Amino acid sequence: MTFLRSFADDKPLHNWLHEDCFPMEAHLTGDDIYALTKLAILEYVSGGVTAAFDMYYHVDRIAECARDTGFRMTICGAANDFGGTAESTKRDYEMLNAFDPLVSCRIGFHAEYTTSEPLLKDLAALANELKAPVFTHLAETASEVEDCFRRTGMSPIAYLDSLGMFNYGGGGFHMVHPQDGDLAIMKQRGLYVCTNPSSNVKLSSGVAPIETYYQNDIPVAIGTDGAASNNCLDMFREMFLVTGLQKLTVGAAAADPVRVLHSACSVGAKMMGLFDCDCLAVGKQADLIMLDLHTPNMQPLNNIAKNVVYSGSKANVALTMVAGRILFERGTYTFNVDPEAVYAEANEIITRIRRSEGR
Amino acid sequence: MTFLRSFADDKPLHNWLHEDCFPMEAHLTGDDIYALTKLAILEYVSGGVTAAFDMYYHVDRIAECARDTGFRMTICGAANDFGGTAESTKRDYEMLNAFDPLVSCRIGFHAEYTTSEPLLKDLAALANELKAPVFTHLAETASEVEDCFRRTGMSPIAYLDSLGMFNYGGGGFHMVHPQDGDLAIMKQRGLYVCTNPSSNVKLSSGVAPIETYYQNDIPVAIGTDGAASNNCLDMFREMFLVTGLQKLTVGAAAADPVRVLHSACSVGAKMMGLFDCDCLAVGKQADLIMLDLHTPNMQPLNNIAKNVVYSGSKANVALTMVAGRILFERGTYTFNVDPEAVYAEANEIITRIRRSEGR
Repeated sequence: MTFLRSFADDKPLHNWLHEDCFPMEAHLTGDDIYALTKLAILEYVSGGVTAAFDMYYHVDRIAECARDTGFRMTICGAANDFGGTAESTKRDYEMLNAFDPLVSCRIGFHAEYTTSEPLLKDLAALANELKAPVFTHLAETASEVEDCFRRTGMSPIAYLDSLGMFNYGGGGFHMVHPQDGDLAIMKQRGLYVCTNPSSNVKLSSGVAPIETYYQNDIPVAIGTDGAASNNCLDMFREMFLVTGLQKLTVGAAAADPVRVLHSACSVGAKMMGLFDCDCLAVGKQADLIMLDLHTPNMQPLNNIAKNVVYSGSKANVALTMVAGRILFERGTYTFNVDPEAVYAEANEIITRIRRSEGR
Repeated sequence: MTFLRSFADDKPLHNWLHEDCFPMEAHLTGDDIYALTKLAILEYVSGGVTAAFDMYYHVDRIAECARDTGFRMTICGAANDFGGTAESTKRDYEMLNAFDPLVSCRIGFHAEYTTSEPLLKDLAALANELKAPVFTHLAETASEVEDCFRRTGMSPIAYLDSLGMFNYGGGGFHMVHPQDGDLAIMKQRGLYVCTNPSSNVKLSSGVAPIETYYQNDIPVAIGTDGAASNNCLDMFREMFLVTGLQKLTVGAAAADPVRVLHSACSVGAKMMGLFDCDCLAVGKQADLIMLDLHTPNMQPLNNIAKNVVYSGSKANVALTMVAGRILFERGTYTFNVDPEAVYAEANEIITRIRRSEGR
């Protein structure tokens, strides 16, 4: 979604999605997606991110881009009423999980509100057939939850669970508005939350109850969402927002920074199914970053974890390594890429699509 | 306050101030303040900040540090019941405003809740004598406002105005909780707001009604607060929070990013009285920064102002210039400073004071 950075702004989620994202995205080709994914990967590795959980179109081209750059990518199925079936989801799942050691895939669909019940039932059947977890946008806005109640008499989480969707676990992106009873389902099914606070504030979606999730031992990962909504792929900003918004809404002691750091690193890996990327240990993948503490925002060294969460910045990222290979070091991309060519292509793509749309 | 970074965390303002800040600050010497100000200046210039509005102790040493580093500093009086009088405020005001072209001073006091009425009246008399504006922490927390109502029957803004404090203007830091009637006073007196959103979320103080201020044409500047509370001097994080928190609480269209950028640059200069630093024009001071747009978080170039406010980072700061002199360029401090010595001294200071306090 990098092509929509600073193009689709200042609107709540529904208008942002239907007026800006969907019409512009309809023009994207596979080559566009490959180029725009490369731009995202430059932003990830320069910001100290070693893997992404991406839900988008043309998954074969996303996978190629990850392989070609050396970045780790877990692709989430994106089926919905405008494209994708259980059959295509299964095909992608099998293709992507065999594609390259850096690439994996999890079953997913866009959201309850964009996916009709027959397709949801097919996807639940697939999850049960493959004994696999399912991931989707979930309880992101109050209106999504209200609409689901009106149609089904249940919250989105309860409704999807009633279809057997989460029999093998899974999780939700955003999870801003859980309802009574949802936490019990989340605990029973072992569901993960991926919180994306900068997207939630910018789209005026709300503040996810992260402290409540923490107190109920529900695993919370942290994501950036796409650059169309938030507008940058900056995990340091997300970490500060996760803790800051809990302090604002719950109290100054909420969202312990060590727990937030654990969410950003270890829980994110586990949610993506990257169980060999969750910590640094013998036998695990060498997916790691180095932070420069010899910078004014990291001094004095009263508490390094707090410095990282409360004061850290991608300017502190000295090195990013994925699968033992250095992709970024001291301001330089160390894989085969020409950043200026990537920027030029991204500008060409958005210029072409704006012209097509007369915007 | 840089020595308290990641030391005084996870508490609401009152406890943070009385349990952590005040006891630790009591040990600071003038030499400490000089060293810790230098650490802050390293953080400012590497983050694209050209001037600070500082309220602290040992103002002579802060002024020396600004002069010695080439950084622009407006010092705000900090009188309160624990130190400072109208006489000392006047002495500092005259001394600092004559000290060096980079240094200036404005009348100020810590806060209504730390300053008794006789001292407030003396300061108001000084402001009227000098025909000068007055600045202070104001309406920062709900309990501050409640306490002031209980004692005076008025809001802090109305109470201070009733003493003649704002006859020549001035402004408040934070201004999170204005009350009925306060906006009329603010407009009548031409008061500035300096909002510090990361401090307000981290101390659980609340969200300042910036969109309301904007709609009422009340000038809003943006500050970082000190590193003890927020915990870093990062104007990019503050700009995103200013707009993000308004979008969250008012709606997705709130806090237009161009206006936020104007707040961060031009209004801040004017609030400090730096009327020749408010824009780039012939005859104005050459206080400016250069941002590198050839970075992934700034591409594509759909809208540069939105890129800066919604996606910008201090990693984009390529150059910082104050009064025509480059202080920072491409990762290097270009004035006479040894950053490692500054970090070492900051660590020595906090280690010594922690030991004294047995913490």
